Amino acid sequence: MTKHLQNDLDKLKKDLLAMGSMVEEAINRAIRALVAREPELAREVAAGDDAIDRKELEVEDACLKILALHQPVAGDLRYIIAVLKVNNDLERMGDLAGNIAERALFLSTHPPLEVDLDITRMLEAVRRMVRQSLDSLVTQDPDLARDVCLQDDEVDRCQRQMFDTLTQLMQRDSSTVERAVQMLSVSRHLERIGDSATNIAEDVVFMTEGEVIRHRPRTPKSAMPRSSR
Amino acid sequence: MTKHLQNDLDKLKKDLLAMGSMVEEAINRAIRALVAREPELAREVAAGDDAIDRKELEVEDACLKILALHQPVAGDLRYIIAVLKVNNDLERMGDLAGNIAERALFLSTHPPLEVDLDITRMLEAVRRMVRQSLDSLVTQDPDLARDVCLQDDEVDRCQRQMFDTLTQLMQRDSSTVERAVQMLSVSRHLERIGDSATNIAEDVVFMTEGEVIRHRPRTPKSAMPRSSR
Repeated sequence: MTKHLQNDLDKLKKDLLAMGSMVEEAINRAIRALVAREPELAREVAAGDDAIDRKELEVEDACLKILALHQPVAGDLRYIIAVLKVNNDLERMGDLAGNIAERALFLSTHPPLEVDLDITRMLEAVRRMVRQSLDSLVTQDPDLARDVCLQDDEVDRCQRQMFDTLTQLMQRDSSTVERAVQMLSVSRHLERIGDSATNIAEDVVFMTEGEVIRHRPRTPKSAMPRSSR
Repeated sequence: MTKHLQNDLDKLKKDLLAMGSMVEEAINRAIRALVAREPELAREVAAGDDAIDRKELEVEDACLKILALHQPVAGDLRYIIAVLKVNNDLERMGDLAGNIAERALFLSTHPPLEVDLDITRMLEAVRRMVRQSLDSLVTQDPDLARDVCLQDDEVDRCQRQMFDTLTQLMQRDSSTVERAVQMLSVSRHLERIGDSATNIAEDVVFMTEGEVIRHRPRTPKSAMPRSSR
């Protein structure tokens, strides 16, 4: 590998990790706005998505330049393709954080829902997946990445539970419908953030080992149809 | 361009279009299962996602081989990168068709919702976007692609309307909650299919003109925050 290519790859990695940090921060802030009921923070997160979008374009542009200039092969080529995909997933996660912030804005300016949702468990699970997927990317650790994929089942279970609880709440008390629908959206967005973290982890496995683990049932549970979500 | 590269690109285009047809067919069948209340068809569509997933891996693999073997530059490189992204969006659309089919299965085995939803307008708008985005891909027509992006506002408007109608319905009649929540999901999945068609159209513009139109406000309307969705 030429020194020039190595420099460009190092710079790319730094940019991608910077983007990862921005997205992780946005998710954490959106969650805080929701849990602590802080409309101001929610507004800020919803407005902060532009910076992530700009970063996405920057990273993609850098990938294209490296491909055109250095025409990398084998492991380096796989790496660039994986970066392009991770970049895309990070941007989507940023969008989802913005969406959660919008729901948090609504929910924090309306009376709290009197229901036991155990949202903390879901939040923690998603936050751990995001953190770990980014860690596996930094350290290029396929085992850590595989572990992320396994955690997705826990998030899906939480989502199903929230779905049932919120549906029952709306049936019991029609004054909760608007807020419960917003909270349902939050849980779906969280689930999709978990999905994106899984995608990133799958790309890390591909990056480091050249093995495609996408679209493979992980456990009998995860092979279930998505009907119940 | 070598003859070998041209052959590989032709084969790639054929594969991508085959995948596009599979996805379009899945969306149309999911919609038919929903509208005509056909549980058997819904089950079939939900089960058919594997073939699309396999096709996605095939297309991606072909892209990587072309990059590694021919090390294309300029327009050809841009084309391959765009194919990778379109491929990813098509796979997501296939997933969403499967999700709609799951909802259609639930809804077609429960009494119909007695409410005027104007879902036909949304279905038609989404179907047109999907068709046109694939057409713009086949014909490499950036103007047609730009037109797809403009149509996304119409889909968003339909989604907001369905959201309002369904929320009011649940408030009025608690016996509708379960079905209305499923229908809300359908409308969100449709909106996301529209988003993916927009992504594909944006990639066609990039493919053909090298211009990035992503993350640009299209009209004042489309620059609105997503809060109301």
